[in-house]
Amino acid sequence: MRSLNIGIIGVGVVGSAVVKILEQNKALISARAGAEFCLKKGVVRDIAKAKKRLGDYVIPLSTDINDVLEDESIDVVLELMGGVHDAYEVAKKTLQKGKALITANKAMLAYHRFELEQIAGDIPIGFEASVGGGIPIIRTLKDGLGSNHILALNAILNGTSNYILTQMFEHNKSFANALKEAQDLGYAEADPTLDINGYDAGAKLLILASLAYGINAVPEDILIEGIEGITTDDMEFAKEFGYVIKLLGIAKRQDDTLELRVHPTLINRDCMIGKVSGVMNGISVLGDCVGESMYYGAGAGGEATASSVISDLIEIARDTHSSMLGFSESIQTSLSLKAPKDILSKYYIRLYTQDKPGVLSQIAQILGDNHISIKAFLQKEHQDKGVAKLLFSTHTSKESDINNALAAFTSLSSVLSEPYKIRIQD
Amino acid sequence: MRSLNIGIIGVGVVGSAVVKILEQNKALISARAGAEFCLKKGVVRDIAKAKKRLGDYVIPLSTDINDVLEDESIDVVLELMGGVHDAYEVAKKTLQKGKALITANKAMLAYHRFELEQIAGDIPIGFEASVGGGIPIIRTLKDGLGSNHILALNAILNGTSNYILTQMFEHNKSFANALKEAQDLGYAEADPTLDINGYDAGAKLLILASLAYGINAVPEDILIEGIEGITTDDMEFAKEFGYVIKLLGIAKRQDDTLELRVHPTLINRDCMIGKVSGVMNGISVLGDCVGESMYYGAGAGGEATASSVISDLIEIARDTHSSMLGFSESIQTSLSLKAPKDILSKYYIRLYTQDKPGVLSQIAQILGDNHISIKAFLQKEHQDKGVAKLLFSTHTSKESDINNALAAFTSLSSVLSEPYKIRIQD
Repeated sequence: MRSLNIGIIGVGVVGSAVVKILEQNKALISARAGAEFCLKKGVVRDIAKAKKRLGDYVIPLSTDINDVLEDESIDVVLELMGGVHDAYEVAKKTLQKGKALITANKAMLAYHRFELEQIAGDIPIGFEASVGGGIPIIRTLKDGLGSNHILALNAILNGTSNYILTQMFEHNKSFANALKEAQDLGYAEADPTLDINGYDAGAKLLILASLAYGINAVPEDILIEGIEGITTDDMEFAKEFGYVIKLLGIAKRQDDTLELRVHPTLINRDCMIGKVSGVMNGISVLGDCVGESMYYGAGAGGEATASSVISDLIEIARDTHSSMLGFSESIQTSLSLKAPKDILSKYYIRLYTQDKPGVLSQIAQILGDNHISIKAFLQKEHQDKGVAKLLFSTHTSKESDINNALAAFTSLSSVLSEPYKIRIQD
Repeated sequence: MRSLNIGIIGVGVVGSAVVKILEQNKALISARAGAEFCLKKGVVRDIAKAKKRLGDYVIPLSTDINDVLEDESIDVVLELMGGVHDAYEVAKKTLQKGKALITANKAMLAYHRFELEQIAGDIPIGFEASVGGGIPIIRTLKDGLGSNHILALNAILNGTSNYILTQMFEHNKSFANALKEAQDLGYAEADPTLDINGYDAGAKLLILASLAYGINAVPEDILIEGIEGITTDDMEFAKEFGYVIKLLGIAKRQDDTLELRVHPTLINRDCMIGKVSGVMNGISVLGDCVGESMYYGAGAGGEATASSVISDLIEIARDTHSSMLGFSESIQTSLSLKAPKDILSKYYIRLYTQDKPGVLSQIAQILGDNHISIKAFLQKEHQDKGVAKLLFSTHTSKESDINNALAAFTSLSSVLSEPYKIRIQD
């Protein structure tokens, strides 16, 4: 049986799970791949720490990255080190040395996937682990749904933020308490910024969009908002009107215009993606032939992510890879990104105002002036005396009109807090 | 650009959708495949009928199957004719002529998939459309989850029966009325036998099991029960205790024993697979690395099924196929099928008895004698005077014990109807 030599750069949570599973499920994986895998070298910063993490599982360790990159016997490099710049350099060198590349690094791919595809030529690049952890969503878009024009993606791509939102919704917790709990349980990093502010989900959405549309966009090109501003008041409104709030990665194509955005979103509680709770991920794909399909599973965790890394190893051993991003020929048409200000959506708006006559009429006047009409309204007493809590949703409006209205609210002396909006997806 | 010539045998609902989508999405599909597809010949029984179905879409038609099989310029044959024996002959001849084969025929594959893989050798066989319609579940098990030992599958694989059960559950309809409605809406055939009696789902489960476990089993080897016996009483019990009733295809591995069975099942209303309603399909896969993942989408319909057929065409054009059932080497271990009588499960039981003192004690006595203990009990008045309706669930019991108890109930003069059982899956 053929044997492939593997080098791993970064033997952390995912890397050590790869080592473990390759050993534990050896017979099965060889039977599927038609090859054996030999763990040649793992590169780490701290050998003692890595040994502790590996426990009984073994891979020769080194602190010198060239022990992998310059080793001509190594066929496949697993880039599991994280970060953008250095990881890109490693990926480039790997390909330039003629070695196959597997990476789980969404932040790096968000910027460099098209360059890497270019550099690779016929050399395989696997990146199933970069989006949706153990869910084989990369293959699904490249291969399984290949005959479909993708009309829309609606995806929960970050388990940490989904856990926080689920706790807030189901157990009435504040954002701060839910985040603290996620950290205590190990679902959130000590610095959870990229999970919370939407950038992790944004990187993943961009990778999916390149598979679905062939579009080369980077995080700076698209609207990305996080979940930091969400309060229990917003959850209360969601419950009252049959919604849940999810951090959604959204792609929406109409003719030659594509919307790509990541933000908290009110969605119908009964749609399949609305049922994805806790740390789980889910990707709903709307194709022109297949209709809606949905892919659900663990979006993070060592073993789930390693499951995807090894699926790429099997594909490389089978020699059944196609071009990295799934297009043999470029389909670069006139597809252009829609500017955020032109988004059409329904909106939910939260306002705290003085509780006195005439305020509502001012608010209503501003909405009317900006062509915005109200769909549902919930006014509840605020815990502070003299303060009214106005929660309402609008019919479909233009983002720029909404922003103008919110700016006008802010300038009213009767409005006591920065107005907050959440987009609604039907 | 390379061009592949296609012959279609059977230009019905799926075949004509393939013709339509290949034309409508031509640029996209060519860009993904790196090839063009030329529709060389479609074989049908009735040319006038096929022309009517095709409308503006064109494929040269013939009534002679040899116009495809003997045409040396045809590279790929789409077997979309249905049936078992004749379809198998066509599939064999296709491969013997060195042509690639794509089939959506689950009934044929339920019996002949291993022989076809043998005959094919290096010739590609695509069968993504045979299970789950547009859901790429074949690829997912062959490729995406390849590093996992599959611990369990829980799958809704038949849209017709799922529609009927959903209508019964949500709208309190009788089985007969829900079936009638499914027929009126075109979701059920004039003869819905194979949808209703579980055999369609059984064929699909067997295909999935061969991908997950490499096991070669046929419908006669496994337990298959349909939904014909379910009544609104059963739905009432389900609602009362937080369940839904689904026709589930179940695979469950424990060490070297594999359970494969299809039957109506009470499952928790809140699990992901419990949320798959109407004509939709869903497949929950439990892998040892990835944990639970779930795949959801349209399980039938011309365009959704054609979406999968064309994904196989793209794979063939890319020349990225692996062995049909996903194993390069046989993994035939000592894996053996569990006999139905040895199944361990919780059960729900429905009994109509005389409404008089002493009956419940007889029932309880029989349960105790067969080592069965009750978990939940619901007794409601029957519309007929003097009749008691007893609905109860058991703790985990052995199938043979349950069957003995039901036989003993039947012999009681106080039991007025054939006892009915539904297995419960936690």
